[in-house]
Amino acid sequence: MKHPLAHWFPILHWGRGYSRAHFSADAVAAAVVTLMLIPQSLAYALLAGLPPEAGLYASMAPLVVYAVLGTSSTLAVGPAAVTSLVTAAALGSVAAAGSLGYAAAAALLALLSGFMLLAMGVLRLGFVAHFLSHPVISGFVSASGLLIAATQLKHLMGVPLTGQTLPELVPSLWQHAAQVHVPTLAIGLGALAFLVWVRRSLKARLRAWGLGPLVADVVTKAAPVLALAVTTLLAWGLRLDESGLRVVGTVPGGLPPLTMPALNADLWPQIEQLALAALLISLVGFVESVSVGQSLAAKRRERIEPDAELRALGASNIAAGLTGGFPVTGGFSRSVVNFDAGARTPAAGVFTAFALLLAALLLTPALYYLPQATLAATIVVAVLTLVDFGAFTRTWRYARADFTALALTFSLTLLWGVEAGLTAGVSASLLLYLWRTSRPHIATVGRVPGTEHYRNVLRHAVQTHPRVLSLRVDESLYFANARYLEDHIAAQVAAHPAIAHVVLQCTAINAIDASALESLETIVHRLKDAGVQMHLSEVKGPVMDRLERSDFLHHLSGRVFLTHHQAISALTEEQP
Amino acid sequence: MKHPLAHWFPILHWGRGYSRAHFSADAVAAAVVTLMLIPQSLAYALLAGLPPEAGLYASMAPLVVYAVLGTSSTLAVGPAAVTSLVTAAALGSVAAAGSLGYAAAAALLALLSGFMLLAMGVLRLGFVAHFLSHPVISGFVSASGLLIAATQLKHLMGVPLTGQTLPELVPSLWQHAAQVHVPTLAIGLGALAFLVWVRRSLKARLRAWGLGPLVADVVTKAAPVLALAVTTLLAWGLRLDESGLRVVGTVPGGLPPLTMPALNADLWPQIEQLALAALLISLVGFVESVSVGQSLAAKRRERIEPDAELRALGASNIAAGLTGGFPVTGGFSRSVVNFDAGARTPAAGVFTAFALLLAALLLTPALYYLPQATLAATIVVAVLTLVDFGAFTRTWRYARADFTALALTFSLTLLWGVEAGLTAGVSASLLLYLWRTSRPHIATVGRVPGTEHYRNVLRHAVQTHPRVLSLRVDESLYFANARYLEDHIAAQVAAHPAIAHVVLQCTAINAIDASALESLETIVHRLKDAGVQMHLSEVKGPVMDRLERSDFLHHLSGRVFLTHHQAISALTEEQP
Repeated sequence: MKHPLAHWFPILHWGRGYSRAHFSADAVAAAVVTLMLIPQSLAYALLAGLPPEAGLYASMAPLVVYAVLGTSSTLAVGPAAVTSLVTAAALGSVAAAGSLGYAAAAALLALLSGFMLLAMGVLRLGFVAHFLSHPVISGFVSASGLLIAATQLKHLMGVPLTGQTLPELVPSLWQHAAQVHVPTLAIGLGALAFLVWVRRSLKARLRAWGLGPLVADVVTKAAPVLALAVTTLLAWGLRLDESGLRVVGTVPGGLPPLTMPALNADLWPQIEQLALAALLISLVGFVESVSVGQSLAAKRRERIEPDAELRALGASNIAAGLTGGFPVTGGFSRSVVNFDAGARTPAAGVFTAFALLLAALLLTPALYYLPQATLAATIVVAVLTLVDFGAFTRTWRYARADFTALALTFSLTLLWGVEAGLTAGVSASLLLYLWRTSRPHIATVGRVPGTEHYRNVLRHAVQTHPRVLSLRVDESLYFANARYLEDHIAAQVAAHPAIAHVVLQCTAINAIDASALESLETIVHRLKDAGVQMHLSEVKGPVMDRLERSDFLHHLSGRVFLTHHQAISALTEEQP
Repeated sequence: MKHPLAHWFPILHWGRGYSRAHFSADAVAAAVVTLMLIPQSLAYALLAGLPPEAGLYASMAPLVVYAVLGTSSTLAVGPAAVTSLVTAAALGSVAAAGSLGYAAAAALLALLSGFMLLAMGVLRLGFVAHFLSHPVISGFVSASGLLIAATQLKHLMGVPLTGQTLPELVPSLWQHAAQVHVPTLAIGLGALAFLVWVRRSLKARLRAWGLGPLVADVVTKAAPVLALAVTTLLAWGLRLDESGLRVVGTVPGGLPPLTMPALNADLWPQIEQLALAALLISLVGFVESVSVGQSLAAKRRERIEPDAELRALGASNIAAGLTGGFPVTGGFSRSVVNFDAGARTPAAGVFTAFALLLAALLLTPALYYLPQATLAATIVVAVLTLVDFGAFTRTWRYARADFTALALTFSLTLLWGVEAGLTAGVSASLLLYLWRTSRPHIATVGRVPGTEHYRNVLRHAVQTHPRVLSLRVDESLYFANARYLEDHIAAQVAAHPAIAHVVLQCTAINAIDASALESLETIVHRLKDAGVQMHLSEVKGPVMDRLERSDFLHHLSGRVFLTHHQAISALTEEQP
């Protein structure tokens, strides 16, 4: 029997059946994920403009909280590329990067985002994430990838670039191009080349050298740590920090601090701006998390519960906010690694958190000489896989409206920044959808000779009758297209003075809202004034139920026919 | 043959066939409309917070311009109740009522609204007006009617009420209730009672006295002028203005002035706020105008051209802005009177404009003692016909979503004012529509025994097969419902482990956008991972064309069947 609270705390469900086999699988997965997370957490903290330890902190408490509340067995939460970028963009105008106020604002952002996600989960508002269409997400993620790569140029080149959008970054790059710090550039490009080679060719090379597939896989995943080690040793051996190479520096070891960002009164004036950014992070983070979670769950024929995921992500973000972290989400790369490494339950996340804690206690002195350029290279390699130019051609070929939404989101994100880009993209996709449904396909239909089928007169050789106009509307009728139908019928009737009957075939009408109902009444009255009767045919059950609750059927000058053929037979026989 | 420019200047079309019969019909209609317009123009100017002559000016040049560009033979443009209210609301925060800046701002508002309408007409954006749903318009107009009536209380009671919303007006009324000016109240209530009686009973009474229907009609329409005359004589005879009754006062006679509101630099800081109000006025005015125009045109089996109407209304507003007027639209009452009085062409509007000009030249001294309370009574009687409480019960019975939009628009308009109310209403109706289509009806279907029909298993006794899941989605697939379908299929497949095939019956799917396409691909891949094949049946032609332009059909693990019955036969025969 399921525990009565298991709906709210899924750990009560899977925790009962937790076995030694689960434990060893989860422990192995945790070890692999930890190896990958150390550089990644530091890098995303750097991307968000925060001190490196914030990345480690954000990868501890949230994982434990998610394990208690989450419904995915393999999702791994923590800092992610796009949410870190949005964090940086939001904080840039609130506090100076690296300052204490900046870290406090990042934590407050996580806290706000957490409460928003939690509230959405409790109110079962998971569906709002559906309004981010694929083209908008695709354009947003591609542009974010490019923006993130562009912001990392400052670390790769050792110059102080400023800005979060292309119009800010490009002039800044131009201005500082001559001041490139050569040792930094050498380390950055070297690490970049190595990481690209690892990603592209290492696994195949190892297999060619005769290694088994499993070993080749683990070595490939661990290889980035080599880049960190080698560049750290170089920086230490050559004392490159003294000649201007920026290194990570002192990372405070130990347990994450307990922080109370909401009590920081300095931030209250900016609360509105932070709340807007938090909403954006919540939506983008939730969409990323739930997509990854669903993909992985489906592979094992499991399910995740979107509303429970909202609550789990919300609580994870609150945990991040209270322990010196910044906004987190279920990241794509770490979750896939977790899944591939064989994690069986969310306990793997708890083990990862403890492994990271150990690393924070023991390894931080070793991170002192880690060049920021290496971390930047890690980020660039990771985010460039987000950029999908193929989506442009695919979407262009498939549908122009979707391409418009994609191109608009992509270019506005690059030009105006992440918030404006995503907002414009969502608005555009909603308006394009409304625009399309506001001009539905309306076919004049006629009888296919010898049958009871009625088809479009423009596509088929069909029989029509001069006194009867048969129309089929291929869309539900609602406010945005109700007047379009009025116009269409008015034009048809004005153009064909012989018409005495209009029959509306309602096969594709799934709903008629109050506006469309009034439009239908208007059409009926206008047609009556012009001496034309209006009829309906093939009205769906639920639509008919609703019409019967109004007085439309009393106003209808004509009749409602079960089939279109009955309508045409009756109306043409009456007056042959 | 039609003149080549007749598309842009409809006067070139109807002007050619203009006859003496047209002339006499139009002249009679113009005389009747003018009689009604003199008090109405003054009253709407008062409502907008402007000096009375602004109302006369706004009823001259715009009518001439509309006659050249308009496509309705009977629409009468000029100041209208709701646009005047929005004008007052917009100007209240820009300049002090009655000041020179206020009148300039009103003219600028007309100019801005004119250019917006003109641009929308040139860009053929007439469809944007369709996004104002009937419940939103109904709620907005009812609330506006009540608000207008409430703002007129100050003129009826002779107390200085302030505010444009109920939370402002009610305390103000409470505060000033003791200061009621008794002569003003007596005149106001007397006029009100007389006008209500005229509207309700005069026509029937006159018929009962033996007058012919035509005479009874004309007398009824002219009767409000009697209220003006009697109260003016009372005010003059008793010198009531000296004891505190507010009268219209000096109205400058003569031609409208040429004004250049755009050159008034004082107004530039407020331009953004004015532009927003102008957009609102444009939309509301256009919807009112085009609804009235279409209703009247249909009665004569004529047509109006929405995009040409936009241009005509735009040019009319520009004319109003350049001649000391304020925003105008095709008003409901004046157009109906024009139609009933027998107007045949837009020339009737030109004659009305000249008649009003004559009135402005000759009658203005006679208006000096006209009590503002009488004008307020005229407004109250006119706007209370706008309030339609029946819409609440009708809409509640018909559809809760529509009722929500109606109630929200109504209450927010009363509480927060016209701009917030309409904006919230439009947003709510769009979101409610998206919400509805984001959770489409998805039926599991089975075979009606002995037929090739497949119907909902919940409503009919049908045959199903444990290995084949047949689903029918009653909605086009797009971004807002794509993930809903993913969830639904994932839940179904997780709940029925025996399933080996999923068949999607696509009869009600009029379109599949790029997001839904990606969702379908995700579904296909997830099902494949779980060992389930996915098939489509009865895909519509245009949808299939588009799918063939993508590589979806290569990824599809199953097949596309022409009919659902063929699909089920093939899949159940394979593995009996």
